[in-house]
Amino acid sequence: MFNIDCKPDRNNPLQLHVQIAEYIKGKIARNEWPEGTKLPSQRTLAQIFGVNRSTVVTAFEELTAEGLIKGNMGGGTRIINNTCLLLSAKPQFNWSSHITSGTYQSSQTIMQQINQSESDPDIIRMGTCEPSPELIPSSMIQGILNKMSKRTIPLGYGELRGSIHLRKEICQYLKTIGIITEPSCILITSGALQALQLISHGLLYKGSMVYLEKPSYLYSLRIFQSSGFRLSGIPLDEEGISIKELLTCQKQNKGSMLFLIPTFHNPTGNVMSLERRKQLVKLCEAEHLPIIEDDVYRELWFDNQPPNPLKAFDKNELVLYIGGISKNLSPGLRIGWIAGPEQVIARLADIKIQMDDGSSAISQYIASELFTSGLYYEHNIEMRKNVKMRRDVTLAALNKYFTDIATWSIPVGSYYVWLKLNTSISMYKLFIKALKKKILIHPGDLYEFRSNRYIRISYSYASLSEIEYAIKTLSELVAEQLK
Amino acid sequence: MFNIDCKPDRNNPLQLHVQIAEYIKGKIARNEWPEGTKLPSQRTLAQIFGVNRSTVVTAFEELTAEGLIKGNMGGGTRIINNTCLLLSAKPQFNWSSHITSGTYQSSQTIMQQINQSESDPDIIRMGTCEPSPELIPSSMIQGILNKMSKRTIPLGYGELRGSIHLRKEICQYLKTIGIITEPSCILITSGALQALQLISHGLLYKGSMVYLEKPSYLYSLRIFQSSGFRLSGIPLDEEGISIKELLTCQKQNKGSMLFLIPTFHNPTGNVMSLERRKQLVKLCEAEHLPIIEDDVYRELWFDNQPPNPLKAFDKNELVLYIGGISKNLSPGLRIGWIAGPEQVIARLADIKIQMDDGSSAISQYIASELFTSGLYYEHNIEMRKNVKMRRDVTLAALNKYFTDIATWSIPVGSYYVWLKLNTSISMYKLFIKALKKKILIHPGDLYEFRSNRYIRISYSYASLSEIEYAIKTLSELVAEQLK
Repeated sequence: MFNIDCKPDRNNPLQLHVQIAEYIKGKIARNEWPEGTKLPSQRTLAQIFGVNRSTVVTAFEELTAEGLIKGNMGGGTRIINNTCLLLSAKPQFNWSSHITSGTYQSSQTIMQQINQSESDPDIIRMGTCEPSPELIPSSMIQGILNKMSKRTIPLGYGELRGSIHLRKEICQYLKTIGIITEPSCILITSGALQALQLISHGLLYKGSMVYLEKPSYLYSLRIFQSSGFRLSGIPLDEEGISIKELLTCQKQNKGSMLFLIPTFHNPTGNVMSLERRKQLVKLCEAEHLPIIEDDVYRELWFDNQPPNPLKAFDKNELVLYIGGISKNLSPGLRIGWIAGPEQVIARLADIKIQMDDGSSAISQYIASELFTSGLYYEHNIEMRKNVKMRRDVTLAALNKYFTDIATWSIPVGSYYVWLKLNTSISMYKLFIKALKKKILIHPGDLYEFRSNRYIRISYSYASLSEIEYAIKTLSELVAEQLK
Repeated sequence: MFNIDCKPDRNNPLQLHVQIAEYIKGKIARNEWPEGTKLPSQRTLAQIFGVNRSTVVTAFEELTAEGLIKGNMGGGTRIINNTCLLLSAKPQFNWSSHITSGTYQSSQTIMQQINQSESDPDIIRMGTCEPSPELIPSSMIQGILNKMSKRTIPLGYGELRGSIHLRKEICQYLKTIGIITEPSCILITSGALQALQLISHGLLYKGSMVYLEKPSYLYSLRIFQSSGFRLSGIPLDEEGISIKELLTCQKQNKGSMLFLIPTFHNPTGNVMSLERRKQLVKLCEAEHLPIIEDDVYRELWFDNQPPNPLKAFDKNELVLYIGGISKNLSPGLRIGWIAGPEQVIARLADIKIQMDDGSSAISQYIASELFTSGLYYEHNIEMRKNVKMRRDVTLAALNKYFTDIATWSIPVGSYYVWLKLNTSISMYKLFIKALKKKILIHPGDLYEFRSNRYIRISYSYASLSEIEYAIKTLSELVAEQLK
């Protein structure tokens, strides 16, 4: 009777409990499970569907709320009513074919799981690169909101490339890190991620080869893959991306672009040396290989300011420079920027206008105020101290619990330790086990396919005590898997 | 000697004067025009390049600022120095091939001209559908900012589908227009335009046929074309899109989606009748043809509230409903939404996360407050009065100046009159002539290819006296062309 022939699909963007509830509704609607039918226990159903019992519980709650099933004290759960469903049970339009046919790829299943788990308030987030609420200068922003409440601020569509005030301020800021540019060569974006989107839509053709570091956080996104580009990973050494390997690769393929995070590389934390920066720009000039420089972590240095960006050594307008304030100040403002040759900026601005008609005027105004007032710079000093303290707590815990099972470099800035286990284990298993303990990690496989050896430990979000607890627990889970 | 072999390309996103300056720089750099060379007059160059003289003037100003040319009183302009240029004249990286190879289409040249002209503060904007600053409730928003300055507001990445508070408020609002839905079935977008982007990336495959009204503002965008979809226009009658024509079209092609603006259709202002709405939903159910309903003008009605949206009659989750506050409240906040089946919303949310990691938390908070406080509803009442007055002034001016040369329907809501000239004329010519008089119009050809007969007159942005002046001037320009 309970012929359950299908398991919920983890690749389906629909949550598992929704899929289960829909499945059961179908059975009721087609009268395969008539009124009065007693359902199998939650535990049994969980086994059959291959999900946690809690997922079945949630599905049951939904069906109960819709008046389709009812649980009795100890007597199990029965189907109580299907008229209400049958009334609305004209075959609903089936969107599945549309959902699967869209050109854009879904996030990886594991990224979807991560995104969903992050909304659980009880989870300890050891994977994210998001600053915790206590790191975000709320009262500073409140002060700006207060100022704004006394001024007439622009609330229309705004300029094509973003607020001219903000673009001027960004030029001033860029000067402090060696980049000389003009407001007309800046485009304001809704975060640095959108900058990548615009570049991928506007400057690359299908089949283009994009070089990037290996590992790279770009592997965890689907931006370039969705647009049909090929990715080719170039190994890193201690000074940054390997020039030799890049050259070899370039001789075999004609690359279209090189994507790089030279400063506090994600996920390894590597900082490209000054010498390597100069060599790289020179090489790319000779090879006519444009560079996308992602520099969103720059301000999060601990003891020594990192070398200037590649863009500062770029005399030939070869580098598109991406910056933003999401990492060091507030992700919620959604403010990033691209600096590049004017004709490229014009092209990207045109695409942005078609995509979302510009970024929030209020967010741009706040960002502009942060720069004008100097608060941006003040905040960064504070931020560095706080993040450094978080790093120290993390290192102490790692020294205590991971010395025998892993190695790592000491981060000199930014949010993560790239932990290398001495022995490889199933990272997905570890991820799931940790999740059960309410600890959310980013398995290294997100950044380096099937390496099964790395974990990116982030100390940006969890509280200090949570960090200590999570690292201890993780070490136990790893040890368990090593047995 | 002055062998000028190329005209600036109006399809190039680079502005014309920049293209001309770059061209001249090239000549200097290659020493084709050596130091001391006297350049042709601005008037002559304007003729050769096929541009306005003012464009050449701007190019000359740029070259003068760079120390490359110098004008003498009455003695023409000479090349004075090329060392500074030559010093930096290592061949700069040529981005053109990247710019032209991107998958995303540039805006139409005329849309680019419009976008650029809109940044001219002296221009009278009779084309735009943007509310003028005086229509935007600035002090209302200032009040909210003041409240916010005393509260801790979320400044992190936020929830996957957007702020839960805002989504709840939107559900409440949607109830007032007959749509019953849940927060999980809502996705917050950065304006309604982004909603269309997400749908085009997430729910359509290459080559899909998208039906739309003819004319339609969608023709002025490149969203669907960039993604490789085909558009098929269905004529309108007085009650809305023609059911008969839609059926005929559907029999020949198997359409993937129907895009519609049933309420205050852009550009005609047409309001679909209640009866037609019901028929249409029924037909689309039978044909398994999903509907994208763009309803961003709904709140801008004058005397009678329009019929409920199609979505209110949609029992089979066939309709994706797009709304927003850009048109009736503030474009600068960039807040829109999609309401649809949960699985579709999950898919679109996943794409949005990949595209820009969510919308501005501050903008979402403000929007949320507008709803919670009831100010949104209060504002709409005020807004309708003000826009109606603008319409009346526009109609009075049209009656005075256009009675003999055009016909139009009286708009019952929203921002535009769809003016039909009695005789067709070159719309592009009219556009350029009007632009010279500092009046910016949207030629009907943007919405109906090569019709050469319509002008969309918008009364949302210009002041009342500007509207009167612009309509008078336009009538003179039309009369001139009719001669």
